[in-house]
Amino acid sequence: MHPSTEVERNTRVIQTFFKMAAQKGLTGIEVPIEWGGSSASFQCKTLIAEILAEADFGFAMSVINTHNVISNIVHWKDLKADGVLARLVAYLLSAEKIACTALTEPHAGSDFSSISTMATVDGSGWRLEGEKSWIINASVADVILVYVQTQSGAGASGIAAFLVEADRPGFIRNEQFGSQATSSLGTSSFKLDGYLAHAEDLIHPAGTAFKRALHSINGARTYVAAMCCGMVSECLSVAAQYGAKRQAFGVMLHDHQGWRWRLADAAIDLDAAKLMVQAAALAIDQDQKVVDQAAKAKVFATRMAVKHIAELLHAMGANGLSDIYPFVRHLSAAQIATLTDGSTEMLLERISQSQRQRH
Amino acid sequence: MHPSTEVERNTRVIQTFFKMAAQKGLTGIEVPIEWGGSSASFQCKTLIAEILAEADFGFAMSVINTHNVISNIVHWKDLKADGVLARLVAYLLSAEKIACTALTEPHAGSDFSSISTMATVDGSGWRLEGEKSWIINASVADVILVYVQTQSGAGASGIAAFLVEADRPGFIRNEQFGSQATSSLGTSSFKLDGYLAHAEDLIHPAGTAFKRALHSINGARTYVAAMCCGMVSECLSVAAQYGAKRQAFGVMLHDHQGWRWRLADAAIDLDAAKLMVQAAALAIDQDQKVVDQAAKAKVFATRMAVKHIAELLHAMGANGLSDIYPFVRHLSAAQIATLTDGSTEMLLERISQSQRQRH
Amino acid sequence: MHPSTEVERNTRVIQTFFKMAAQKGLTGIEVPIEWGGSSASFQCKTLIAEILAEADFGFAMSVINTHNVISNIVHWKDLKADGVLARLVAYLLSAEKIACTALTEPHAGSDFSSISTMATVDGSGWRLEGEKSWIINASVADVILVYVQTQSGAGASGIAAFLVEADRPGFIRNEQFGSQATSSLGTSSFKLDGYLAHAEDLIHPAGTAFKRALHSINGARTYVAAMCCGMVSECLSVAAQYGAKRQAFGVMLHDHQGWRWRLADAAIDLDAAKLMVQAAALAIDQDQKVVDQAAKAKVFATRMAVKHIAELLHAMGANGLSDIYPFVRHLSAAQIATLTDGSTEMLLERISQSQRQRH
Amino acid sequence: MHPSTEVERNTRVIQTFFKMAAQKGLTGIEVPIEWGGSSASFQCKTLIAEILAEADFGFAMSVINTHNVISNIVHWKDLKADGVLARLVAYLLSAEKIACTALTEPHAGSDFSSISTMATVDGSGWRLEGEKSWIINASVADVILVYVQTQSGAGASGIAAFLVEADRPGFIRNEQFGSQATSSLGTSSFKLDGYLAHAEDLIHPAGTAFKRALHSINGARTYVAAMCCGMVSECLSVAAQYGAKRQAFGVMLHDHQGWRWRLADAAIDLDAAKLMVQAAALAIDQDQKVVDQAAKAKVFATRMAVKHIAELLHAMGANGLSDIYPFVRHLSAAQIATLTDGSTEMLLERISQSQRQRH
Repeated sequence: MHPSTEVERNTRVIQTFFKMAAQKGLTGIEVPIEWGGSSASFQCKTLIAEILAEADFGFAMSVINTHNVISNIVHWKDLKADGVLARLVAYLLSAEKIACTALTEPHAGSDFSSISTMATVDGSGWRLEGEKSWIINASVADVILVYVQTQSGAGASGIAAFLVEADRPGFIRNEQFGSQATSSLGTSSFKLDGYLAHAEDLIHPAGTAFKRALHSINGARTYVAAMCCGMVSECLSVAAQYGAKRQAFGVMLHDHQGWRWRLADAAIDLDAAKLMVQAAALAIDQDQKVVDQAAKAKVFATRMAVKHIAELLHAMGANGLSDIYPFVRHLSAAQIATLTDGSTEMLLERISQSQRQRH
Repeated sequence: MHPSTEVERNTRVIQTFFKMAAQKGLTGIEVPIEWGGSSASFQCKTLIAEILAEADFGFAMSVINTHNVISNIVHWKDLKADGVLARLVAYLLSAEKIACTALTEPHAGSDFSSISTMATVDGSGWRLEGEKSWIINASVADVILVYVQTQSGAGASGIAAFLVEADRPGFIRNEQFGSQATSSLGTSSFKLDGYLAHAEDLIHPAGTAFKRALHSINGARTYVAAMCCGMVSECLSVAAQYGAKRQAFGVMLHDHQGWRWRLADAAIDLDAAKLMVQAAALAIDQDQKVVDQAAKAKVFATRMAVKHIAELLHAMGANGLSDIYPFVRHLSAAQIATLTDGSTEMLLERISQSQRQRH
Repeated sequence: MHPSTEVERNTRVIQTFFKMAAQKGLTGIEVPIEWGGSSASFQCKTLIAEILAEADFGFAMSVINTHNVISNIVHWKDLKADGVLARLVAYLLSAEKIACTALTEPHAGSDFSSISTMATVDGSGWRLEGEKSWIINASVADVILVYVQTQSGAGASGIAAFLVEADRPGFIRNEQFGSQATSSLGTSSFKLDGYLAHAEDLIHPAGTAFKRALHSINGARTYVAAMCCGMVSECLSVAAQYGAKRQAFGVMLHDHQGWRWRLADAAIDLDAAKLMVQAAALAIDQDQKVVDQAAKAKVFATRMAVKHIAELLHAMGANGLSDIYPFVRHLSAAQIATLTDGSTEMLLERISQSQRQRH
Repeated sequence: MHPSTEVERNTRVIQTFFKMAAQKGLTGIEVPIEWGGSSASFQCKTLIAEILAEADFGFAMSVINTHNVISNIVHWKDLKADGVLARLVAYLLSAEKIACTALTEPHAGSDFSSISTMATVDGSGWRLEGEKSWIINASVADVILVYVQTQSGAGASGIAAFLVEADRPGFIRNEQFGSQATSSLGTSSFKLDGYLAHAEDLIHPAGTAFKRALHSINGARTYVAAMCCGMVSECLSVAAQYGAKRQAFGVMLHDHQGWRWRLADAAIDLDAAKLMVQAAALAIDQDQKVVDQAAKAKVFATRMAVKHIAELLHAMGANGLSDIYPFVRHLSAAQIATLTDGSTEMLLERISQSQRQRH
């Protein structure tokens, strides 16, 4: 029921869960039917992200990240049915392989255009050099969509993205990021030391990569917000059930007004967050501008999660700290969510810009 | 543009605005077309409430309250085209007369079923005795829908509602509630001292009044929430314009990160509140159960308004306190909104009940 | 008991209260005994400010401001027992005259060194030209300590301060600042149009005024914080008494857990604010550096007041809005307190500077 | 520098640290000089608790808990220099043995008087039966001061306290409480299954134990509050140093206004918490009533810690999650602090009682 605890102990178990998810089609939500997906909407993807995160944020991220790499390949490459990429897509869809996306570097967190991992032409292919860090899923990923700079000093216009395979020479995976808090996320870093990419590994050429990344980041912000909703929803449900069974001072927890108002407060803000996620997801499906809406949904939902998961943990008493409940795990994940795919600070700047333009 | 300041000084001006609103059909939004209204949706009414409250909460309440009394009459009474009630409806629709609804009493705030204003049969009509207080709009209303108890000790089942006209004997209007904060709302109290109501003045007989009031209160909670959105929206807009013109320490206010984040925070929560209002209004139009949803929308929107109007006032510096801006006036109104049509405490109890039933 | 409501209606009443305060020595707290004061400590002054503000922030400000002008005169001028200034001091001590201090100008709020009111030498005296705005107490003050620039473009080093008397030519008092919220403070603005100051009216010459003002502002921040404590203390006391008498849903308000926790939350933060004020006041009496401490006390106490006065108002239900209670009045005053003598934003910058120097 | 990470991996290391602490006299702060302690004040103990918690809350708790058991023995027992207890005291003072106190049971969290672990007379000694849970330090403690019921149904008056040694028959230590969050605290549970206590193991007889526990709990609340100050202080210091070195968008973190205000906010509330701790500690040393003051200090300091450690973690970006920094560890500890020695809810009730008595 809560895969992540298992995940942390046993990579085999995660693979089992992953394959179950793949069999249910969760790696192919937005992938066209002809390539083995469901051609489903972004709203559908958001809902799945929310439900998966009820169980575990890290697992939800793994599934959605793998999905996104598939989606990038089939959307932007002219696949041949028997080609190398088509075979890779099949592996990813069936969860034989796990994928993720790598933008962040040790010295370039939120400031994406300043990345320094370099790709230089090398024969018919490319030579990749650099380091990526804080990459969710990178501790287990077989395939990584890596953003690089192709032209020193070119900034946004020189950025491109390559598929990198972890079992090829020049890929050096670092030890998992040293924190219990992030362990269920498989957050890790890696070095590219003379990694040779083939020409067809270039998914987004310079001139297109930055723009496409910015476009897809609105989606990411929206489903991360949805995941926060899923985590709070699960915590609220666990606490509500606990409050109907556990007594304090001779009455059920739920019969203490202060106790039940704590849950009511969480329920109110959770509803608000869900509506913001739904509105942003609908706008994405309708191809509207969503920079502002997705930013607002993410700031609201992540703040809501950090606040209310901590409050609901406290509502459980010391039991809230036990590993048999999801509170500690979800709380760490919520903190990560405030940083991933645009930190709260960066998003407040985006929202301020929209605000200023409007007046 | 900001009627209330005028309202406070001059009753004639409010009548002018009121008639303008009536001419635009705002007193007849949900009233059937055959009775001179627009047969519009509740969603439409909510939107109008929001826009009116951008200018003034008290004025918005006056218009909507008048509308609601008309709506009660045409919905629940078998009107004859040339009857007394039809004539009254016409007066109200054209804003010749202003109306409001009176539930609260000096010693019965949120606990509606314990009201003690009595109606006893007197000949072919009824004799009304008692006192109502904190009634929004009562300082100017000509027609008041008054909730009474028909049978001492009967509680909810004995409650009925009568139309009371302020110019008939036995209606004694008290001085306006002594607070600058509530002055634009025309909040007042009145006594019924042997007021004789005709048989046809009985709009909701005992056995139906309480239930109908509970039904309509979900609507009221939703449009009060909408009004809070309107007030915050106006404050945000004023502050944003101010920040683009006023300097501090050599740069525009907007160029101070702390300053613009204050506005971004307000914009985020305002969006959330609007979505909650829209969702509740849609559910009302679709005849779904909305007790929980309307309660959540009101708690969220009123808290949001109290918090962010104060923050936006502060963003204006000392100018925020000036009467040429709406901050002080809207902030008082937001505090009133936390109490009217179900206090935050009462709504938290409702939300807790739904929460408990679900688990 | 609550002078300000009276103050708003009747200037005579304020004079009565003022004279009562003067008779009790409140205009001479820190003034040396030989000049008719008490030679008391700053801690004592802070405590008096707190107690006066329980009744009314505006009245507290009037008394303390008058006190401060006296204190400036006797501290920095070589008084002759039968001189003009000594006579003025006597008038101020006995509250025959009311005083205040004027720094702020229409376009120079928090940025004190950029004031543009000019003083130019004129014969044996000075000619003053300019405008001051948002001056607490200026609507009633007879004597004003006005900060001016003596040398265009000189910034801080050119600033000086003169005593200005409201009944002399060239002093033009504007109408009271147009806001109900600030009316009990007598906040107003005035113009100096060719006002001729005598040589002895120069209290702080250029080169000393800015520094002395910065020094005294730490005291002002501390007693404004104390006044916020006084207001919250009074609101808490009123609410606690109300909760022991008023029922809701068949039990005393105090018997609702949510209700009494609201008061407990206020009591906790009030204690914290009081300790911060006491610590800063002690440090001032001990001549320690208090920039950081006074800034922290003011930010904490003003935030505390804005938050908890609003919460305690709500705890009273609709009665909280009535003018017979201090909530609405104290809430407006608390908002003013966040702006006066260094806005929250400016103080956060000061605190950040100390923080940075420490690490 | 950060013992706990080591603690989690290696029990030997904790023993080394423990012995270092003992050598510096930290196990004997309040213990009389004739018994090998320092006869220092409670204020001194509070300060030490704060400093130890900068490094690790769990380690601070271990040292202080051991200290408290020693203090209980020497204070309440008539020690003979060559007796069994005197030898035990020597072992504890030198950290050869670690101690803790056990009140909580699986079904009696905050409601202390309802504990059900029983002590029945058995020959010249006592037979102990029952289970204790969520006991901080119990996973490593050699000596435990266990609170028991001596007379079924007697409630508070029947409660007594015995010294229990972990290496004697009938003491069954359960596995450490299953949560990463609590691992540095050594939180655990144990069973007493026919444990035979000697007559001299009875430290607090029935009739005195409950009262003495209530007395000492005010001290515990105060030093737990102090520990929260220590943890926030350390996080603030780490973040401030980081902000002076790390860049984002081309400037130092500290040069972003939103970033540095986050630290300023933490610094303000930290100062307030420290003053509340100091005031409560002084009152304890002066033998004043401190129930209300200690409760307020604990509620304020624990809320402050939960809020600001999370905010400061976020200020570090993804690095805040790394185990080389104390944020994740301190945040978990702060959550535990909200529950131990009186949950926030229970303390709000205490504060409400004082509030009510005062008015």
